[in-house]
Amino acid sequence: MIIQLEPNITDSQKDQLKEELRKIQYKVNPVKTQFANYLVGVGKREFDIRSIGTLPGIRDIHRVSDAYKLVSKKWRVDNTVIDLGDGIRIGDGEPAMMVGPCSIESEEQVALTIEHMKKNNIRIMRGGVYKPRSSPYSFRGLGPDGLKMWYEQAKEAGIKIITEVMMVDQIEGMYDYVDIFQVGARNSQNFNLLDALGEVDKPVLLKRGISGTIDELLASAEYIFSNGNERIMLCERGIRSYEKAYRNTFDINALVMLKEKTHLPVIADPSHGIGLRRFVDKIALASAVAGADGIIMEVHHEPEKAFSDGQQTLSFDQAERLYKQLKRLEWLRE
Amino acid sequence: MIIQLEPNITDSQKDQLKEELRKIQYKVNPVKTQFANYLVGVGKREFDIRSIGTLPGIRDIHRVSDAYKLVSKKWRVDNTVIDLGDGIRIGDGEPAMMVGPCSIESEEQVALTIEHMKKNNIRIMRGGVYKPRSSPYSFRGLGPDGLKMWYEQAKEAGIKIITEVMMVDQIEGMYDYVDIFQVGARNSQNFNLLDALGEVDKPVLLKRGISGTIDELLASAEYIFSNGNERIMLCERGIRSYEKAYRNTFDINALVMLKEKTHLPVIADPSHGIGLRRFVDKIALASAVAGADGIIMEVHHEPEKAFSDGQQTLSFDQAERLYKQLKRLEWLRE
Amino acid sequence: MIIQLEPNITDSQKDQLKEELRKIQYKVNPVKTQFANYLVGVGKREFDIRSIGTLPGIRDIHRVSDAYKLVSKKWRVDNTVIDLGDGIRIGDGEPAMMVGPCSIESEEQVALTIEHMKKNNIRIMRGGVYKPRSSPYSFRGLGPDGLKMWYEQAKEAGIKIITEVMMVDQIEGMYDYVDIFQVGARNSQNFNLLDALGEVDKPVLLKRGISGTIDELLASAEYIFSNGNERIMLCERGIRSYEKAYRNTFDINALVMLKEKTHLPVIADPSHGIGLRRFVDKIALASAVAGADGIIMEVHHEPEKAFSDGQQTLSFDQAERLYKQLKRLEWLRE
Amino acid sequence: MIIQLEPNITDSQKDQLKEELRKIQYKVNPVKTQFANYLVGVGKREFDIRSIGTLPGIRDIHRVSDAYKLVSKKWRVDNTVIDLGDGIRIGDGEPAMMVGPCSIESEEQVALTIEHMKKNNIRIMRGGVYKPRSSPYSFRGLGPDGLKMWYEQAKEAGIKIITEVMMVDQIEGMYDYVDIFQVGARNSQNFNLLDALGEVDKPVLLKRGISGTIDELLASAEYIFSNGNERIMLCERGIRSYEKAYRNTFDINALVMLKEKTHLPVIADPSHGIGLRRFVDKIALASAVAGADGIIMEVHHEPEKAFSDGQQTLSFDQAERLYKQLKRLEWLRE
Repeated sequence: MIIQLEPNITDSQKDQLKEELRKIQYKVNPVKTQFANYLVGVGKREFDIRSIGTLPGIRDIHRVSDAYKLVSKKWRVDNTVIDLGDGIRIGDGEPAMMVGPCSIESEEQVALTIEHMKKNNIRIMRGGVYKPRSSPYSFRGLGPDGLKMWYEQAKEAGIKIITEVMMVDQIEGMYDYVDIFQVGARNSQNFNLLDALGEVDKPVLLKRGISGTIDELLASAEYIFSNGNERIMLCERGIRSYEKAYRNTFDINALVMLKEKTHLPVIADPSHGIGLRRFVDKIALASAVAGADGIIMEVHHEPEKAFSDGQQTLSFDQAERLYKQLKRLEWLRE
Repeated sequence: MIIQLEPNITDSQKDQLKEELRKIQYKVNPVKTQFANYLVGVGKREFDIRSIGTLPGIRDIHRVSDAYKLVSKKWRVDNTVIDLGDGIRIGDGEPAMMVGPCSIESEEQVALTIEHMKKNNIRIMRGGVYKPRSSPYSFRGLGPDGLKMWYEQAKEAGIKIITEVMMVDQIEGMYDYVDIFQVGARNSQNFNLLDALGEVDKPVLLKRGISGTIDELLASAEYIFSNGNERIMLCERGIRSYEKAYRNTFDINALVMLKEKTHLPVIADPSHGIGLRRFVDKIALASAVAGADGIIMEVHHEPEKAFSDGQQTLSFDQAERLYKQLKRLEWLRE
Repeated sequence: MIIQLEPNITDSQKDQLKEELRKIQYKVNPVKTQFANYLVGVGKREFDIRSIGTLPGIRDIHRVSDAYKLVSKKWRVDNTVIDLGDGIRIGDGEPAMMVGPCSIESEEQVALTIEHMKKNNIRIMRGGVYKPRSSPYSFRGLGPDGLKMWYEQAKEAGIKIITEVMMVDQIEGMYDYVDIFQVGARNSQNFNLLDALGEVDKPVLLKRGISGTIDELLASAEYIFSNGNERIMLCERGIRSYEKAYRNTFDINALVMLKEKTHLPVIADPSHGIGLRRFVDKIALASAVAGADGIIMEVHHEPEKAFSDGQQTLSFDQAERLYKQLKRLEWLRE
Repeated sequence: MIIQLEPNITDSQKDQLKEELRKIQYKVNPVKTQFANYLVGVGKREFDIRSIGTLPGIRDIHRVSDAYKLVSKKWRVDNTVIDLGDGIRIGDGEPAMMVGPCSIESEEQVALTIEHMKKNNIRIMRGGVYKPRSSPYSFRGLGPDGLKMWYEQAKEAGIKIITEVMMVDQIEGMYDYVDIFQVGARNSQNFNLLDALGEVDKPVLLKRGISGTIDELLASAEYIFSNGNERIMLCERGIRSYEKAYRNTFDINALVMLKEKTHLPVIADPSHGIGLRRFVDKIALASAVAGADGIIMEVHHEPEKAFSDGQQTLSFDQAERLYKQLKRLEWLRE
């Protein structure tokens, strides 16, 4: 349910509205667009929409019949730009680069990665401290200690941190050390996690499910948005197909379709998108050409020794060649 | 890491082992098979396996290189039978029936369903109180109040409850009212939830992911098992394919393959497996013939009015015809 | 275009109609249902439908906007029964069995297979003499010589032959020795072959494409039917999915959906459907329960030595156990 | 079987070899690489490889255990360049453009398309005269008359023709009017057609099957190559996935993987790859960046009125904007 407020709604009218919503057990969040102020309500029970719609101070009210609305370009025409502070913006011009290892492993690894990033003027570092692993016997990440160690170095270097959150209970402990919360492909429809991230005032990068549809991805983003957090990025990271020649099938169609359907920034993950180091550069370039607002990818000072998914991780040298090629595509944004 | 204990291991030897494991930050759970007693350890860091293997009271120790081991038939030869008490067993003879609505809606609905079940001698009732929904604007279930109301009636009637749990924080509140915790397809790789359910002493029904592989399903079950909970059922509920003529593509191959690979009971969900009411009976019969240890399916006293996924829900009459046909297949178990 | 004729249309009216159709370069075939006589026309060019519709002797005329119509149950209510002569009928009662090797290999092999069939009262033998093979370096079948050798023995034993035809030019040479022409999965949309088989007066078994949809399969059957050959069987043989645990994913949903959509007999191929010998029996039983009108499967006197796809081929003993189990499901047809 | 000849093999030695091959019913074709001369043999029966290998004039002989070998980069290191004459080459520098309508419709349409091509210096025109259509009631193309009309205009304008061939019997009639034979996705494993095109001395563009794997595509190309025709292009045109937001899922991974595996030119078909006009330019650019040796796409003077698949066809204006953008990517070839 989306309630459009009159621009001049009074405080007592607001109170009356809140009281009505409390009665029908609806939780509402304020959402602001360039056009108007809204309340977005999510509730358990059906009710007579007129009981709210006829209150003073309400301009309009309607049920949401689509799975998503707020993240749609029909709702907001201007593209969303996510400002991380310190002059770092996503969705505004050339693709934002987010690079780093699969897993945070050691102080030395973090230091070397940051050195590589500073040399190449890259400001957002990726890395996992909580790792979703198919097998319970695999390394699951360094956890909070690793995150804090990483944060110390990143802060010092003026670098922002994006890292995966796997469950609601982790959010609070991670909050102080994280600039962007990442939701992984396996949690793309973990609706409780999405709800909780909707109440956080930090940006979220939401990955498409392993076989998620475009519409499911947008509906998952709507969970976050309708809870009040408008700073969301969507990420194509390859889908599961019948083809066995690569780990995933990068769906470049998704990039161009998402750019049409939503005002949110769209990020490409070429590392998981093909899963083979020697091809990552080509998929990254293709993503930039197709309109990606950012590229998130794995780099490591010794890719062959990287934890777990090393075979898709670029060396620093490989990454640098790619950065230079990406620079030459800037005219596409004109 | 799996540690096989000597049959005559002493208490002081056990203490010494625990102390060593504490040092390397390994968490262990005891697992018993018909052959021996084991400790299954999951930890963050690599370490020298000999430091444990040479302790007194340890017969054998090895790293787990596959994604799963405990749930495999190579580990345990006898099929696991899950005893719910009151003479209700799963994995032991004819397919266990688990029927009920998509969502718990009202006292009357519960009462009518229980009446239908008693008439047909069915002892396990399914129903959702926390519903994962693609869209945030859809009905998400009655929550704990609905569960308690349901429990009152089910307990009175001697009927067991299976219902979906979506997040770790819900487990405690649900525990007293639930006989089987269900993990839905979208949470099939929600590893924190799986870990937590591994520590619960109630059975778990784990659904295959929407595009989950057989091996991923078994690895997810291993999460639960390696945390100490051996009472797990696996559920085939249809996979996502290119075919648009039905909501999901029921993978009957998965039933027969799972029965070979694992000692755990394998359950079929024909309702989601095809998603169209008029075909559910045929898919249920085929599942029984293929070796399913149980069938979980949606029934409703007024299927057209059922919440959300009504189009796959059987009427009581349709369900009764199916129960009778299933009875005639009993010879297959001989 | 489908033209319904008046029951009492005269010969001179028919001639006039033919002349008109010739002018617009439409080829027509007569199709008879339980209700009326029709002419089904397929042509290259658009034309004014009224020029035909207003001729004497024409009751009705309409363009076909769906991809298929004649094979639909909306067009013909009664199920099509295919009579092969000698009391062998498909689509009429218990599932018709079609068994035999992947490839025809030798006189001895054929003799042993026929002996097995006679012992078990099976009347239709499958086998390949033209084999579609992914690699050009693989054995491609014995060709016409093999077919004739096979035919001699089959005829003597009163056994019918079903075998794959791969191209239009083979039809004539095969015609005298074949009872059912099979179109393989890779040729499911080889439209010239379908057209040509529509002009043959022998039954056709049409396999679903490797990733063919239900609607594509029906549209391919419509090619055959609209050319005048109404004796068509459709065959589910497993689709290509992301799952790697089996060679194909048998789509049991397709069986029940096809039985609803079309009046044509629907055949299951459990051998290719799962591709692993030890599971073929379960998939065959499940198919029978789901309503298959026939089962086509691979058997061999020495399955481990069979050409090419031996791993999905049943031994005679395995097959016999299955025949007996299938017998016990006969009540399902009541 | 691949036979490597001694460089100085004599004519009488060649005759002796031919006689031996005739005995075992092997058909051979000469294949020349930069390293040596070979005979590639395809036959029905297994035989003792030594009977050939020990003949004079034979340097080496081996069975082919992979599904393909000749098309592999392991066999031929240098990339194959296809020379169409008149200075038109494919696989040699910037992507070759092949544009034109889905179907050849009229003289005027051809004239307008050629005018558009000349203005933009494009030398290869695509268009269908035999159209594979899911439904038998759809327009199937103008056939040979359309082809001849097209040829007259193209020849006059110095433009080469690529068009689809659907069956062996069409090859001869088309031969004089066609510069590149196209094999469509549905015929990607029509092995008789591939064999026949292997004996033609004109280039072939082979499309990937609707759910064909990389390895199957290469094995299909091997059919053509092993029959003696080395001038083959492979074409990625989108695969079938679960996603319904676009007609096909363009597999950009396939482009980069094929470029590694084979020496044959790799062509992208962005029109079918996404199936929606407004996105074709982005997919074309991405393909060029990923390394495509050519782009085949649909253009039409009035796309909304184009036969059949008009919704994926670019207008001339849209196409021109794309040509200019493609020009700006030339540095990628450096």
